[in-house]
Amino acid sequence: MTTSDDTPVVSAGTDALRIDLNADLGEGFGRWSLGDDAGLMPSITSANIACGFHAGDPSIMRASCASAHQNGVVVGAQVSYPDLSGFGRRFIDIVPAELTDAVLYQIGALETMARASGTVVRYVKPHGALYNAIVHHERQAAAVVEALVSHGGQLPLMGLPGSISAREAHRRGVRFVSEGFADRAYTADGLLVPRTERGAVLTDLAIVTDQALKLRRAGIESICVHGDTPDAVAMAVAVRAALTADGVVVASFL
Amino acid sequence: MTTSDDTPVVSAGTDALRIDLNADLGEGFGRWSLGDDAGLMPSITSANIACGFHAGDPSIMRASCASAHQNGVVVGAQVSYPDLSGFGRRFIDIVPAELTDAVLYQIGALETMARASGTVVRYVKPHGALYNAIVHHERQAAAVVEALVSHGGQLPLMGLPGSISAREAHRRGVRFVSEGFADRAYTADGLLVPRTERGAVLTDLAIVTDQALKLRRAGIESICVHGDTPDAVAMAVAVRAALTADGVVVASFL
Amino acid sequence: MTTSDDTPVVSAGTDALRIDLNADLGEGFGRWSLGDDAGLMPSITSANIACGFHAGDPSIMRASCASAHQNGVVVGAQVSYPDLSGFGRRFIDIVPAELTDAVLYQIGALETMARASGTVVRYVKPHGALYNAIVHHERQAAAVVEALVSHGGQLPLMGLPGSISAREAHRRGVRFVSEGFADRAYTADGLLVPRTERGAVLTDLAIVTDQALKLRRAGIESICVHGDTPDAVAMAVAVRAALTADGVVVASFL
Amino acid sequence: MTTSDDTPVVSAGTDALRIDLNADLGEGFGRWSLGDDAGLMPSITSANIACGFHAGDPSIMRASCASAHQNGVVVGAQVSYPDLSGFGRRFIDIVPAELTDAVLYQIGALETMARASGTVVRYVKPHGALYNAIVHHERQAAAVVEALVSHGGQLPLMGLPGSISAREAHRRGVRFVSEGFADRAYTADGLLVPRTERGAVLTDLAIVTDQALKLRRAGIESICVHGDTPDAVAMAVAVRAALTADGVVVASFL
Repeated sequence: MTTSDDTPVVSAGTDALRIDLNADLGEGFGRWSLGDDAGLMPSITSANIACGFHAGDPSIMRASCASAHQNGVVVGAQVSYPDLSGFGRRFIDIVPAELTDAVLYQIGALETMARASGTVVRYVKPHGALYNAIVHHERQAAAVVEALVSHGGQLPLMGLPGSISAREAHRRGVRFVSEGFADRAYTADGLLVPRTERGAVLTDLAIVTDQALKLRRAGIESICVHGDTPDAVAMAVAVRAALTADGVVVASFL
Repeated sequence: MTTSDDTPVVSAGTDALRIDLNADLGEGFGRWSLGDDAGLMPSITSANIACGFHAGDPSIMRASCASAHQNGVVVGAQVSYPDLSGFGRRFIDIVPAELTDAVLYQIGALETMARASGTVVRYVKPHGALYNAIVHHERQAAAVVEALVSHGGQLPLMGLPGSISAREAHRRGVRFVSEGFADRAYTADGLLVPRTERGAVLTDLAIVTDQALKLRRAGIESICVHGDTPDAVAMAVAVRAALTADGVVVASFL
Repeated sequence: MTTSDDTPVVSAGTDALRIDLNADLGEGFGRWSLGDDAGLMPSITSANIACGFHAGDPSIMRASCASAHQNGVVVGAQVSYPDLSGFGRRFIDIVPAELTDAVLYQIGALETMARASGTVVRYVKPHGALYNAIVHHERQAAAVVEALVSHGGQLPLMGLPGSISAREAHRRGVRFVSEGFADRAYTADGLLVPRTERGAVLTDLAIVTDQALKLRRAGIESICVHGDTPDAVAMAVAVRAALTADGVVVASFL
Repeated sequence: MTTSDDTPVVSAGTDALRIDLNADLGEGFGRWSLGDDAGLMPSITSANIACGFHAGDPSIMRASCASAHQNGVVVGAQVSYPDLSGFGRRFIDIVPAELTDAVLYQIGALETMARASGTVVRYVKPHGALYNAIVHHERQAAAVVEALVSHGGQLPLMGLPGSISAREAHRRGVRFVSEGFADRAYTADGLLVPRTERGAVLTDLAIVTDQALKLRRAGIESICVHGDTPDAVAMAVAVRAALTADGVVVASFL
């Protein structure tokens, strides 16, 4: 197991560096579907499965767990604010204790679906506005980590390195898995360039795969390939191929 | 452990007959509350806790589990159709496989809340229209039992004796806990007199406690004291006192 | 205005027979979309816009009304059971008075969106399981018609000819617009062959357009071209072309 | 009609000063109820009726409109963020255009219920976190006022004097009805003392009624008597009696 805190110094090109590729899956609801889950599965090693609060319903969750299991992909709980109409993309000023309970609820629901599909939930990744909020929002970051502690403290939290949530996780003894985005431009401070700015989203596959390699070298443990963009599958295939060609082992962070 | 199928012949008055008292708890949602949960807890031995589909939200679920744990009350999952606006009292012609998944989701969510509160979910009791539907609806009864089998087959199903759900549970190897209602009139066939008919609901405490004793003698394992009627607490206290005075041990069916 | 009750006798081939083409539109929700609304708009004359209970959210509703208005398409309220997770396709045994109020609520919400878009709601068409229920369910059919009477009695109800809802509408003085399906097989009794049976859905465009012409000759006022099938646009274009070639004027039933 | 901008100079004690008393009503949902609506109705002149987004369902909305109509109370739309689980008390960073549409949707739904009950919607009052947000949040305040302009510009907006929403309403030609709270302490700047501070809520009826009189003299047009506190009815009765005794006419602001 390799974490961002103890990445060994390696001789480039010879060592078996390892990287996880994750994607958001199961983000349909009832009659609606989103993204090409089946197309992404062969390229990824971790699936962030929606738990019903921003997307996902019990049957979609179960089918997503079963598909992940069949593809040898690790299952994570993609937890969200309660916000179906906003797809979890609206910041909500929820009472921290209620956020803790909402996160626990979602993990538990997915755990049952995973078990019924022959697998288990192995990590937690907050979604959308919650993901962004806990980069800087002290009380919500603490509330999310508190949920993981209440759950038993064994599930890692995936998120942005340098975030308040990372700090809180370390403080509470919860493993933090650092994540990077191959297709998003970064500021000099290591933050994501907001989507509203020109050049925020990278579309040139050569640039995207190059950034994936750099992220790996910087100690990032998992790279997110977004699930709901039209060319997500092509990008995931290209990123995986480039990493493999570079001698990186694409495998779960576990 | 005693089930309705192997009730031993006993000499009335001398043996330590055992009966469980259950009630529906945690049936608020967000700003809204319902029933006197704190008042009922001391009188009951099993708490059917709402799981968010007809009532209950993550924080109410967690608080209800914690209260049950503190009072030594066994926790059960009160599962429902997805129907917040109808409080689970409307029959819904849901696809059986989706019902199975919905039941699993609710059990899993409550299990996490129970564990975070120091206890575990020990049984499942369907709520409202779903409870009534699986008395006679073959496919929905099979779907609910399928959820319990998918879950591992260890959680008993509580319901009406003689129902299709009881038959399905036995067929699939799931323990069925027979339930009776102390405050509802029964037909000669053992079905509940519909609430729309005169005399359907018993209010005289002497009659109610007398019926509780008869139900126990008939092999019923658990008696439901409804949670959301104004005099639910007084009735629960009276029923428990009458049973105890009659030499019946009020204890969980586990 | 021409209704099925007072269709004038016409000389075939010379007179302007008239038919309405309707489709279900605005059936996305939040992040999710469904069907090619923009592609369908030029072919239809009436848009059944979802009102938020099975699909549709305020912004989608407003955009759909605006698009209908720009295309000269008449707006109708596609009302449903409260059932987002089931897309309104599950029969719900809702209390009739609550169904009446739910229908009124949806009409009112859409009316405001229509007015803000420069148009108005001109008719009501129940969706999915509700559409099917009121073909035979006396109390729910009466509840839907009661909503239209409470609303003022001016909005027509679109539905299956020969249904209980048609009978109730006539009894209460509400105009009933008879609807047919060009792409669905009918039984000898005039009912739709259930989708579960082989041959229930017609896919040969020649057969579909032929059936559209027969429906018009049988006095049907509006033909539904389903909105969420992959080839809905091609079918709508073909049906419209065939009707026009046959001398039928494709226009709203108003 | 009297607005805060053109309050006539009056001789204290002799002139017929006028004040509106408003309360939040219809804040139940499905099986759940909240507050003593029937008890409050005789004391108030304006009812802020919940529209289904934080509370209220179609049947509760209709019953509330009917009750208001019977009591000669003016109906207003109490609009909210979409937030049933949080009772509209959580700030949500919703896209302004979506907020505009959500407000319109709620007004329209209530208008239909009001008309079916023999009355009409006469004003709009945002609820909870939305009420507080538009005191200072430029884009959300503009979005709410935009909804009123889109609606036709005839419905007044009720809110806090000095707020951004008041400024936006004036700028767009929408009447703003200034509201005060008899039972809440104010800061020197005219803002409400946060509930988390000691003394924020006034409970002494003498102080409450005195503050009501001062608010009226300061030009406030409507005084809110909260609907969901245990002693709301007693407070409403006392405030109305004190105002009447002081020669103030308690009547709608219309």
